[in-house]
Amino acid sequence: MKITMAHGSGGRATGELIEQIFAKNFNNEVLDKMEDSAVVAGNKKIAVTTDSFVVDPIEFPGGDIGRLCVCGTVNDLLMRGAKPQYLTCGFILQEGADTEVIRRIVESMAETAREAGVQIVAGDTKVVEGNGGMYINTAGVGFVEEDVEISAQQCTPGDVVIISGNMGDHHATILGCRMGIENTIKSDNAPLNEMVNALLTNKIKVHTLRDITRGGLATVLKELAQTSKCTIRLKEDSIPVSPQVRDFCGLLGLEPYYMGNEGKMVAIVAKEDAAKALELIRSSRYGQDAAIIGEVTDEEAGELWMETAIGGIRSLEILQGEGLPRIC
Amino acid sequence: MKITMAHGSGGRATGELIEQIFAKNFNNEVLDKMEDSAVVAGNKKIAVTTDSFVVDPIEFPGGDIGRLCVCGTVNDLLMRGAKPQYLTCGFILQEGADTEVIRRIVESMAETAREAGVQIVAGDTKVVEGNGGMYINTAGVGFVEEDVEISAQQCTPGDVVIISGNMGDHHATILGCRMGIENTIKSDNAPLNEMVNALLTNKIKVHTLRDITRGGLATVLKELAQTSKCTIRLKEDSIPVSPQVRDFCGLLGLEPYYMGNEGKMVAIVAKEDAAKALELIRSSRYGQDAAIIGEVTDEEAGELWMETAIGGIRSLEILQGEGLPRIC
Repeated sequence: MKITMAHGSGGRATGELIEQIFAKNFNNEVLDKMEDSAVVAGNKKIAVTTDSFVVDPIEFPGGDIGRLCVCGTVNDLLMRGAKPQYLTCGFILQEGADTEVIRRIVESMAETAREAGVQIVAGDTKVVEGNGGMYINTAGVGFVEEDVEISAQQCTPGDVVIISGNMGDHHATILGCRMGIENTIKSDNAPLNEMVNALLTNKIKVHTLRDITRGGLATVLKELAQTSKCTIRLKEDSIPVSPQVRDFCGLLGLEPYYMGNEGKMVAIVAKEDAAKALELIRSSRYGQDAAIIGEVTDEEAGELWMETAIGGIRSLEILQGEGLPRIC
Repeated sequence: MKITMAHGSGGRATGELIEQIFAKNFNNEVLDKMEDSAVVAGNKKIAVTTDSFVVDPIEFPGGDIGRLCVCGTVNDLLMRGAKPQYLTCGFILQEGADTEVIRRIVESMAETAREAGVQIVAGDTKVVEGNGGMYINTAGVGFVEEDVEISAQQCTPGDVVIISGNMGDHHATILGCRMGIENTIKSDNAPLNEMVNALLTNKIKVHTLRDITRGGLATVLKELAQTSKCTIRLKEDSIPVSPQVRDFCGLLGLEPYYMGNEGKMVAIVAKEDAAKALELIRSSRYGQDAAIIGEVTDEEAGELWMETAIGGIRSLEILQGEGLPRIC
C-alpha cells in the first residue's frame, strides 16, 4: 500500500497506520495508551536530546534510517554519561511511501531499541508531498547518576584521546550507494551502551565523550579543543581505518578523519586510566578496533594538530563546505 | 541569505547557522553548552511527547510554524496534567530557505516558549533538497505531580464535556490562506498553561483533557468515547463557533466539529465541578468563549451522538479521508 495525504489527516487512515505498523512494533504499555503524552517514571537528573534523520538512501548495507535514528539518539544520551530510557519518534512520510518499507524500518527501530534498552513512548505521523521518502525525528530522555559529570568542556591537559574503532565506515557506505560503487563496506550504525557502561561501571576517569558523526573526527576534536580551551595532538598513523575504507578513500581522494560515522565515539580520559579504558572498550561490543590516537596538551586554546604519516605536522580545521549531504 | 546543503554538513556553515540564529534566540545556560545532550533537573514522574509540524504556509494570520510547534507540544504535555519544562527542536530545512524567514520563525518560537514557561534545551538542524520550505519537530518533557492522574481512559458517565473556546479558527485560517479567500479569521494557536493550571490549582475533578487538533472535535470525542468505553452526547447549538468561521463554513460546506484547532481543549470533568471549571476556563487567557457542550453517559461503549440544531440526532464518526492536509 502507498501512503496518501489521508494518512496525515489525524482521522481514520492515520489511526490505522499507527495501529497496524507503529503500535504493533513499538509495543509497550505506555505507548499503547495512545495519550497526548506518555507519563513515565523520572529521575532527579535527566539528559534530553533530539536528532532528525534525512539519510538518503533510507536502507543501506549494514543498516537503515530506523536503526540509525535509534542509535543516533541513544548515543547522544550516552555521551553525557546518561542511561538511555525513553525515545519519542516523529515520522514525516512523503506521499507514495510504501507501507512495506515503512514496516521494515519500524521493525528495525524496534529491534535496535530493544538492543539499546530504551522504550519508544510517544510518536507522531505527518504526511507531505514528495516522492515516497521519509524523515524521522527521534528525541530521547536518559537518567544521569548524581556523581556523573561528563562534558565537552572537560578535556584536560595530559588526557589521552581514544577512539572506539575504525573511521569512515558509515560515510563510505552512503557515498558508495549513491555513486553505485560496488564494495563490501557496511555502515557502523550501532548503539554504544555496552562500552560506555563498562567505562562508568569501572569508575574510569572519563572527562569527555563524543560520538563521531557529521563532520568526522577532525570536526569533533577541533570543537572539543575550542570548548575545553586546550590543544589536541593526533598521530595520523594511529587512527584506525579498515583496509576497504582506506582503498575507497584512496580511490576518491577522501580523508577518513572528515568522514562521518554512526557508531563510533571519542573518549577523553585521564592518563592513568587510559590503558584500562582502551581494554574495556576493546572488550565491548562494537569496540574491538579501538585505539589511542593522541593526547590533550596545554598549548594554545582551540588547536588541533596531526603528525602525519610522513612525519609532517598539519593543523586540522572544522569541516568546510557540504561534506556529504544527507549522511544521517 | 539562502540555505544551502552546506548548512546541513555538521561543519562550519552549520555552526554559524546555529550560533547566529538558534543559540541567540533560544538563549539559556543549558543549550549554550552545545553538548550532545542537555543534562537538566528531573522529577519523579515525567510526561514525554513529540510532534512534527509541516504546516503550509509556514506563516499565517495569527501565528506561524514556530508558535505552532511550541504550542502543540506544550499543550500535549498539559493534557496529562504535566507542567511543561523542556523542549527539544529539530529543524529540517529545505535548500533555498531564507535565513530571514528562519530568524522570524525562531524568534516566534522563543517568544512562545517564554509565554509557556519552557526552555528549549536541545536542537538539531538538517538540510534536504526542496523549495525553501521547512519542517520542525518538537519533543517535550513535563513534570507531573504524584497525585495527578488525567487520561483518555477516565471519562465517566455523568461527567460534563467543556470545550475551551470557538471551533475551527486554525483550520479556516490555513484553508483561507491556501484558497486566497479574503477574511479576518486568525489562527487560535496558543499555549493553554493558564487554564490547565487554574483547573489543577483549584482541585477541579478533571478526568480527561485533550487538545482539539487534526480531525477536530468529533474525532477527538469519538476516540475518547472508545477509549473510555462510554457514550458522549453533544448539543450542536452549544458548540461555540465565531460568526466569521460560521460564515466561512457556510460558504464552503464545512462542519466546524471536523475542523482542527491549535489552542483549544476539551475538558471532561465531574458534574459537581462543571460550573466552577467553566468559570475558571472562561477567566483564563484564551478561554473566554468556553462552553459546556455535552455529557458522558453509560449507554453503549464508543458512541458519539449529537443533537442537531434542528432537533435530529446524528451519530458522529472519526474523520475519514484527507481532511485538510498539512494543517499543522
